[in-house]
Amino acid sequence: MTKRPGRFSVIGTRRPRLDGPLKVTGRSQFTDDIVLPGMLHGKIVRSPIARGRILNIDTARAERLPGVKAVLTHRDAGDFMAGPDLFLLKQEQVNFFGDEVAAVAAIDEDTAAEAAELITVEYEPLPPVLSVQQALTADAPLIHTYQDSNQADEIRMDFGDADKAFREAEHVRTDTFTVHPNHSCYSEHHVVLADYSLPDKLTIWTPIQSSLFIQMNMAFKFGLPVSSIRIMNLNTGGAFCGRGGEKPHHYIAALLSRKAGKPVKIQCTAAEEFLVYRGGGTHTFTLKTGVMQDGTLKAVDTDLLLDCGAYMDTQFIVLRFIGFSQQMLYKLDASRFRGQLVYTNNPPYVFHHGTGMVALRFALGSQLDLIACDLDIDPVELRVKNAVDKNYTTPSKIHYASCGLKECIKKAASKSGWKKKYKKLPPLQGIGIGCGVIRSGGKGMMDHDTSAAVINVGEDGKATLFTGLPDMGQGSHTAMAMIAAETLGILPEDIRVIAGDTDVAPFDMGAIAQRGTFTTGNAVKQASLDARRQIAKAAAAQLGVKPTQLVFNNRSVYAREAPDRTIPFEDAAYSTLHSIEGRYVTGKGFYNPPTQAVDTQTMQGNPALAYSFGAQVAEVEVDPETGIVKLLKMTVAHDVGRAINPLAVEGQLDGQVFSGMGQALFEECIMQDGQTLNPTFLDYRLPRTFEIPEMKHIIVESIDPYGPFGAKEVGQGPIQCTTQAIANAVSNAIGYPLTELPITPERVLAALRQSGEIAILKD
Amino acid sequence: MTKRPGRFSVIGTRRPRLDGPLKVTGRSQFTDDIVLPGMLHGKIVRSPIARGRILNIDTARAERLPGVKAVLTHRDAGDFMAGPDLFLLKQEQVNFFGDEVAAVAAIDEDTAAEAAELITVEYEPLPPVLSVQQALTADAPLIHTYQDSNQADEIRMDFGDADKAFREAEHVRTDTFTVHPNHSCYSEHHVVLADYSLPDKLTIWTPIQSSLFIQMNMAFKFGLPVSSIRIMNLNTGGAFCGRGGEKPHHYIAALLSRKAGKPVKIQCTAAEEFLVYRGGGTHTFTLKTGVMQDGTLKAVDTDLLLDCGAYMDTQFIVLRFIGFSQQMLYKLDASRFRGQLVYTNNPPYVFHHGTGMVALRFALGSQLDLIACDLDIDPVELRVKNAVDKNYTTPSKIHYASCGLKECIKKAASKSGWKKKYKKLPPLQGIGIGCGVIRSGGKGMMDHDTSAAVINVGEDGKATLFTGLPDMGQGSHTAMAMIAAETLGILPEDIRVIAGDTDVAPFDMGAIAQRGTFTTGNAVKQASLDARRQIAKAAAAQLGVKPTQLVFNNRSVYAREAPDRTIPFEDAAYSTLHSIEGRYVTGKGFYNPPTQAVDTQTMQGNPALAYSFGAQVAEVEVDPETGIVKLLKMTVAHDVGRAINPLAVEGQLDGQVFSGMGQALFEECIMQDGQTLNPTFLDYRLPRTFEIPEMKHIIVESIDPYGPFGAKEVGQGPIQCTTQAIANAVSNAIGYPLTELPITPERVLAALRQSGEIAILKD
Repeated sequence: MTKRPGRFSVIGTRRPRLDGPLKVTGRSQFTDDIVLPGMLHGKIVRSPIARGRILNIDTARAERLPGVKAVLTHRDAGDFMAGPDLFLLKQEQVNFFGDEVAAVAAIDEDTAAEAAELITVEYEPLPPVLSVQQALTADAPLIHTYQDSNQADEIRMDFGDADKAFREAEHVRTDTFTVHPNHSCYSEHHVVLADYSLPDKLTIWTPIQSSLFIQMNMAFKFGLPVSSIRIMNLNTGGAFCGRGGEKPHHYIAALLSRKAGKPVKIQCTAAEEFLVYRGGGTHTFTLKTGVMQDGTLKAVDTDLLLDCGAYMDTQFIVLRFIGFSQQMLYKLDASRFRGQLVYTNNPPYVFHHGTGMVALRFALGSQLDLIACDLDIDPVELRVKNAVDKNYTTPSKIHYASCGLKECIKKAASKSGWKKKYKKLPPLQGIGIGCGVIRSGGKGMMDHDTSAAVINVGEDGKATLFTGLPDMGQGSHTAMAMIAAETLGILPEDIRVIAGDTDVAPFDMGAIAQRGTFTTGNAVKQASLDARRQIAKAAAAQLGVKPTQLVFNNRSVYAREAPDRTIPFEDAAYSTLHSIEGRYVTGKGFYNPPTQAVDTQTMQGNPALAYSFGAQVAEVEVDPETGIVKLLKMTVAHDVGRAINPLAVEGQLDGQVFSGMGQALFEECIMQDGQTLNPTFLDYRLPRTFEIPEMKHIIVESIDPYGPFGAKEVGQGPIQCTTQAIANAVSNAIGYPLTELPITPERVLAALRQSGEIAILKD
Repeated sequence: MTKRPGRFSVIGTRRPRLDGPLKVTGRSQFTDDIVLPGMLHGKIVRSPIARGRILNIDTARAERLPGVKAVLTHRDAGDFMAGPDLFLLKQEQVNFFGDEVAAVAAIDEDTAAEAAELITVEYEPLPPVLSVQQALTADAPLIHTYQDSNQADEIRMDFGDADKAFREAEHVRTDTFTVHPNHSCYSEHHVVLADYSLPDKLTIWTPIQSSLFIQMNMAFKFGLPVSSIRIMNLNTGGAFCGRGGEKPHHYIAALLSRKAGKPVKIQCTAAEEFLVYRGGGTHTFTLKTGVMQDGTLKAVDTDLLLDCGAYMDTQFIVLRFIGFSQQMLYKLDASRFRGQLVYTNNPPYVFHHGTGMVALRFALGSQLDLIACDLDIDPVELRVKNAVDKNYTTPSKIHYASCGLKECIKKAASKSGWKKKYKKLPPLQGIGIGCGVIRSGGKGMMDHDTSAAVINVGEDGKATLFTGLPDMGQGSHTAMAMIAAETLGILPEDIRVIAGDTDVAPFDMGAIAQRGTFTTGNAVKQASLDARRQIAKAAAAQLGVKPTQLVFNNRSVYAREAPDRTIPFEDAAYSTLHSIEGRYVTGKGFYNPPTQAVDTQTMQGNPALAYSFGAQVAEVEVDPETGIVKLLKMTVAHDVGRAINPLAVEGQLDGQVFSGMGQALFEECIMQDGQTLNPTFLDYRLPRTFEIPEMKHIIVESIDPYGPFGAKEVGQGPIQCTTQAIANAVSNAIGYPLTELPITPERVLAALRQSGEIAILKD
């Protein structure tokens, strides 16, 4: 019953998710479950070609169809911009297969679909630009005619003296790596329900990672105060960076609702989901790395070509994240980066699984193994030798207040039996390692990274926690309840988490950049401390001690010196509410990490206070006849600062490995003339349940000084290690470097054909 | 722009209701608008006789009907009690026409109705008890066989020495008055949607006056923690005391949902509404009043027989409210009261329009006019002479910290031209006065009367006010927004009021006993002051003054001494949120009037801090051929302490006069053998728009020392005056006292036949 100082009752215990029963019994409400009185259904008319001139849009037949309540084209939307380069509905030209041209709202989905078919758009097809390389040629047509070139963005970062470092390096090698486009594959398709039937209030139900972002953007675009926009983010069926902000269907639903005077729901089909709202585009890395003969890394110089598709969306941020991150994992004298974001007539890409990190880590980690081979150093030793440490500051001034990277590498190697296996496995079996680092929230290039939290304690001793942080399936609400429960000395099931409604939620940047547990968690802890102070007054008076002497634990309150005399927490809460000077218990908390945003000129700075690290070892077996790679085992170590809920951390690790396995071995959008040829889950290959490898979890706790109870994020960190480890294991198995993701059977077979001649990694 | 001390920018201005646009365009969501995935529809099987033994209930055919998901009888509900004397579903006996016997849930309303018809219940009819008088006879059958008599409750109150006061009185008269049963006639019928598909969470959507009451009762009845019950009170289409707490259909929907594992909606039909959920039963007052020849009142002794119908519900509270209230309006030496609540086989009655006050005031006010006639004193003068004053304490220790009663009487008389009209009108025209008093919330017989409020201010300077107070149409949310806006120096439209969800709302007793503006208003003011203090810090730093020197007005902040240098409120809020020590602005407020609950032994005490007063003058014309009374004009004076929103006060006065007119002249449930013969709005006569009289509003502001900005309630106060004034005006017109409500044409014609012989009031 009593609590030893420094020990926790809730933190660190294995807790099933509080929302689990509702989810597994199908009772959780998602956007598509919402039915409003008078609600209409919307359908978007999309371009059937990758590039072309619009000659005519005829909506007359659609408008005459009974049940159609609104038809929307550029004639309504005008020059409404859904992004910096994106007219919402196209008037003159379409730029990708799926580009938005018109939309309808009707009384049911069938009528909406029929009306969409009745809208006739005449096109003059133009030759599409289908690769970054083609887009950058001198005679390539301009995707956006008002621009000078197809280069959407370019960023250079130069930390340290790269020229000097390369001069000093005893060995330099350059390799090229390519990552092909894929999809985030969350289980809930994009869907929106917008009610803009009155001019001064727009309510949007949609799954989203940051209600705040979409709220602010909608307010700006529609010229309304932020508080006139209400985002209802009930539940989100996965996101994986794919739901960072609003998309054209959000604006289209709002405008349809405005025109029809009724709420309008748009549910994207599986094919639409794939055609339009996909993950990362093709990344092509040209990597030059300088190293000393003893394996000490000197410098990395990267040239990245990133296909952003027809419109830029948020890909300029991906460019910057990649640029920063190449110097975050290993100690370097210098880091140089040139990234180009290039328009093509491919579908626009968005954030995806770790914001470019998977691609970057695959490239850097694969090259590191090639260097290890060049220098005849064990890849694990090479990584340990160069790994960053606690209190290390990177060339770009990123600082690590806690760091468990070396511990992760060593433990992953040791638990996987690396020494006994590396170079000692039978032919076509391989082992490989991958490492990663990711920040826990932080300011990045924004001026704040704020979370606020409010917690009310009722007279029955149960609490209501208000947060703007969505739970997309990662268990963040359970983690928040655990932080509050530990602080208040109650149990997670005593806490109801209220989120998903911006009319109700406190200010919060949302579930982006792995910030939930760290940033919102800090705010929740503060709010809970505030509430505890309010309850402590009545309890202290009842026990005849000072409030500071109280311990709150296991639904009880007692004086530290007299643990035998306890008051039930419920009674303390009741007494507070119903005392003569009675007070409703409302605690508030706030956290905005006291860091500086990155300098936009020098690109230097420490955007976050905490960074998570990981290392994973993959073991694979390759079938030489089919080229199929079987992932046998993953040994997964991750430095989470402190595991608030080890069960959830393991779940997060499992999920990330599962996704990483998909990206490493299977997932690719097959493109032809700008069209995705495999836009369903039958054709787009995901890992299947029986393909999941044996998993070994190693939770490393570096106890971060700034995290709530020492916690940092898991987030999208582990997946960086997974793809890299699998790629290195396959290369190790077949004795030939794999330089493209995903490592499909045909790429394996091609490499196998080569490996007889050029056996780089195998003796 | 600047604000003079003691002057208000928002309080006292005429503001349309913030929810008006949503309401008049049909966009507000009521319970019946909610559609949940998998939702079923429920139907209740009711007794078709007033009293009888249940011989058999056969549900087999209903259970076999395709689409039926649950059938509920006493076999499921067991001895589940929905009230102190009310088994939820009857096993042995039914006690009124409409008594609940069984229920079904099916996939749609038609199937549910068909299934309800397929349930066969065999009854052995028993002779019903249809009046209080019959119920109290020695050989009357017992309604509830386990009780000794049909007396459900009896209360006696004796304040002061009544025997002495009657001995001293120079004139004593005794009269009997009867008020017939009627209905609250809110526009939204009773409806409930319950989701009890998981055993640890019950969510109920329903229109209700106090979400807290129903939440606590449901928690108690189902053995769940209070926080496991979620009440969603989205919008309430009127209540008039008729939705104080839960009713059988709430429990039935919950049990159907529990059994079917799906949400269940029950929408009562108009006929069900009238048959089952009606307002007050028959009140029979025998009034004895002692008075001096100069008109000084000495004592009142009342004997009340109140028909509570088959089950008691909350009518025992009505008995007590009436007992208290007879000594609250005029100074008396003593007050004696005996009230009996009596079971009959009429439908159970509930709270109704001022909790018995309309009936009481009609009886007392009618007798006062008879006394005025006896003593030849002007009824206005008689009332002014005896009216209570500020700082007066009644025989039961009720104390008035503010009181505008005399001002109301005088102004109503003067503005109506009383002196020129009383006894000077042509035959069959009449004028009459009525007065009333009602408390502003308070503890009554409960141990607290708590309201908490929370207000968040966003970075755009707009605020979100969280309250547990429902707005049933009286404009209370607009009043709350005005109180917050005045305090924060912004405008009511800058404030979004969030209410109606107990998972989100702070603790609040709800909209009962006229407590909203006074009690919740005080909490809202406290919360707003708290939020203002938080914003003041950043603003004061920016202006280089102390926070205490700041004035918040009209969306600006400035120093009192330097009103020319202003900061926009929005900027001050933004700076607070985004300051280095950044804070999310959350203000909390709390109010529990520091009064004592009434002593349950002596029945003495001052349950509330504030009391509202009113006086109204009615002018009527009687058609001697049809007996139809035409209400020509109402002069309505009401002491509201301070009018937060004069427009809303006038609206409230209009609504109350409209309802009072209905109760005075038209509304009556016509009963035969326990069945209501007019259970529709076609047959149950309500006032029609063209019958609304000319209205003159007089707002008296006595500035209550405890009210927010001096405000007290309007609530159900004015209607007490209306019925009384109209009855007195009709008596005055025809020269014969009307002793029954409503004053239907047939009662008028009967009185007219008498008035030729006994011309009491007319010369």
